Amino acid sequence: MSGSNGQPLREVGENRMVARFREMAVRGLGRSVLVGPGDDTAVIRIAGDRLLLLTCDMMVEGVHFRREWATPRQIGWKAMAANLSDITAMGGEPGFAVASVAAPGDLGNGFVEAVAEGLIGCASQHGASLVGGDLVGSPGPVVVDVAVTGFVSEDVLLRRRGARPGDVILVTGALGASAAGLEALRGGLSRENDHVAVAVKAHLEPSPRLAEGQAIARARRATAMMDLSDGLAEDLPRLCRESGVGARVRSDRIPVHSSCRAVAELLKLDPLALAASGGEDYELLLTCPPEAAEELRKAVSAGSGAPLTVIGEVIAGAEVVMLDGVGRERSLGSGFDHFAAPG
Amino acid sequence: MSGSNGQPLREVGENRMVARFREMAVRGLGRSVLVGPGDDTAVIRIAGDRLLLLTCDMMVEGVHFRREWATPRQIGWKAMAANLSDITAMGGEPGFAVASVAAPGDLGNGFVEAVAEGLIGCASQHGASLVGGDLVGSPGPVVVDVAVTGFVSEDVLLRRRGARPGDVILVTGALGASAAGLEALRGGLSRENDHVAVAVKAHLEPSPRLAEGQAIARARRATAMMDLSDGLAEDLPRLCRESGVGARVRSDRIPVHSSCRAVAELLKLDPLALAASGGEDYELLLTCPPEAAEELRKAVSAGSGAPLTVIGEVIAGAEVVMLDGVGRERSLGSGFDHFAAPG
Repeated sequence: MSGSNGQPLREVGENRMVARFREMAVRGLGRSVLVGPGDDTAVIRIAGDRLLLLTCDMMVEGVHFRREWATPRQIGWKAMAANLSDITAMGGEPGFAVASVAAPGDLGNGFVEAVAEGLIGCASQHGASLVGGDLVGSPGPVVVDVAVTGFVSEDVLLRRRGARPGDVILVTGALGASAAGLEALRGGLSRENDHVAVAVKAHLEPSPRLAEGQAIARARRATAMMDLSDGLAEDLPRLCRESGVGARVRSDRIPVHSSCRAVAELLKLDPLALAASGGEDYELLLTCPPEAAEELRKAVSAGSGAPLTVIGEVIAGAEVVMLDGVGRERSLGSGFDHFAAPG
Repeated sequence: MSGSNGQPLREVGENRMVARFREMAVRGLGRSVLVGPGDDTAVIRIAGDRLLLLTCDMMVEGVHFRREWATPRQIGWKAMAANLSDITAMGGEPGFAVASVAAPGDLGNGFVEAVAEGLIGCASQHGASLVGGDLVGSPGPVVVDVAVTGFVSEDVLLRRRGARPGDVILVTGALGASAAGLEALRGGLSRENDHVAVAVKAHLEPSPRLAEGQAIARARRATAMMDLSDGLAEDLPRLCRESGVGARVRSDRIPVHSSCRAVAELLKLDPLALAASGGEDYELLLTCPPEAAEELRKAVSAGSGAPLTVIGEVIAGAEVVMLDGVGRERSLGSGFDHFAAPG
C-alpha cells in the first residue's frame, strides 16, 4: 500500500481519527479493560477494586512548543503536567511515568538534562515518579512523549460519560491564561508586565489540578469529568458526546482569568474567545446534580482554595451552545485541532 | 539557560546520557520502585508479589525507519514489538499499551490507520492490548512512541544485574538478520532472493521472544537477561556493567542467521560483524550457571523450538572481549548509538 492514501489528516481532524482508532482497538480489548481509547486515560482492572490508569501525551517542537519561547526545563515540565492532568481528570492519583525524548544529535547534553529536570520536577511535585525512558536521535524537531500510570478506586472513578440532563457544568480555576500567554509570546509582549508574565507562565509551566481532581472524586457527587487540554469549545462537546447529552453554557459565567483579560486588552483580542477556545489551561471540566454543586465547591476550596464555577447546564439532545448575557446564542467556536493549527 | 549548552549529544553518546538520567531520577524514587531507569523496564511493586513493569520505546522517521522501506503497518508493528521485547526480557508478560503518533497533516488518514493496525496486530498476537494513545501533528518526521505495562511475579523477575563469574552467556535464535535486512534495503537488493526477503522482514517486522522469555524466567535458572535491541557489541557490555562482571565471547559460537550470511555474501560484508554489531534482532541475551544451560535450552525448545546457544562465559573484572576460533582477541566493535548513526 502507498501509505499516503486517503484524506489528509488535517482535513479528517482529530476527533474522527480518534473515533476510528476506538473502533479498531476495541475489538482486541479483554474484560479487564474498563475504559479503552477515548477518555482521558485508559482504565484497567488489575486487582480487586484498585484500577490502573494509563495515558500518554506527546509534545512536538513547532506544534506544541518552540525552543525560542520555552526553556528545556519548561518543555519537560509541561509534557509531564499534561499527563498528570489526565490522571486527575479520572479522579486518580498519579503513580509512575516513563518519558521518551527525541533530540537532534547536535543539541547539547545540557538541553536534554534540563528537559529531564522538568519532567522529574513536575512529577515529584505532584507525587509521581519518573521511572524510565528512552532517548533517541531526531532529524529535526525535539519530541517529548510521556506515559503515566495512575491508580484509582473503582467507587470514585470519573469518566467523560455520565453527565445527565439537568446536571450543572462546572470548571475549576479560571480559563484563558494559557491561550493569552501564547498570544503574548507570538506578539512579543514584554514580561515586565505582570499579567503578561503570569499568562506566559501559565502557558509554559501549567499546574495540573491534582488536589482538586481528587477532592472532587472523593466527594462522589460529580457525574462526569475531563481536563481542559484542547479548550472548552473542543472539550465540552467531547464530554457531551460521551455522555449522550447536549449543553448550554452561559458566556457571562465563564471565569476568564484576569491575566487573560489584561493580555487580551493589550493585543486587542476577545478575552472570552481566548478563554472558551484556547487550549492547555488544564483546568477540570465536570458535571454534577445542581444540589451537589455547593458541596463540591467547598470540597475543592477547602483543599486548594481554587474556585469551582457553574458555567451552564446539561440538556437533552446533542447540541452544545453558548448563550451570552442576554440570552442570544453564540457559537462556542472550535478548540485546538492538532492537525489544523501548527503553533 | 541557553538550552544548547554542553557537549553535543552525538559526542556524549547514549550510555553516558542514560547514566546521567539514572542519577537524576533515582533521587525521587520511592520504595515501591524496585528497578528504576537503566534496565529493560522499570519494575514497581503494586500489590503483593505481583510486579508492574513499565517501559517505552520511541521510533523516529529518518533514524529508525524510512517510509520508502517500511509500510505504515510495519512501522507500527515494530514499535510495538520493541516494547514487548523489553517486557519479555524481564521475564514478564505484556499487558496494556498506549501509543503516541506524530504525523504531518498532509499524510493520508490511511497511513495512520495502518500504523494503528500494526500496533494493534503486534500487540494482540502477543497477548497485549492497545488501550489508548495520542495523535498529534508533526512539522516533519513521523514519530511513534509506545509505552507498555507488563506483569511479573517477583520470584521469576530477571534483570541485567545478576550475572556471576563462571556463568555461561547464551542467546536465543540467530543474530544478524535484521542488520542484514537493513543493508539489503540500503543496497537495493531484490527481495525475490529468499534470503533477502527473510532478512528484510526480520528488520521491518521483528518477532519479540515472548514465549522464550517466559519459559526462561519460569525455569528460574537464569541469572541475568536483557533483549538485544542495539546489538550484542553494545548490549553485552551493558549487562556486564550492571552485573559488575566482564565477559569472554567466542566469535565462532555466535549463531549467525543464515539469511545474514547470504546477504553479507551478496554485499561483500562480514556476516559476523552484522551479527555482533547489528541491532534490532530482539533476541534474548542471558546468563546462567553452566550446569543449567541444558535445562534452559530444553525449556525454550519445548515451547517455541527456538535454539538457545552458549556463546561465551562471564568472567571477573570489567573487560568484554571476543575471541576468534583460534583464541585471538577481536574487538566486539560497537553497536547502535542513537545519536551517532542516522539512517
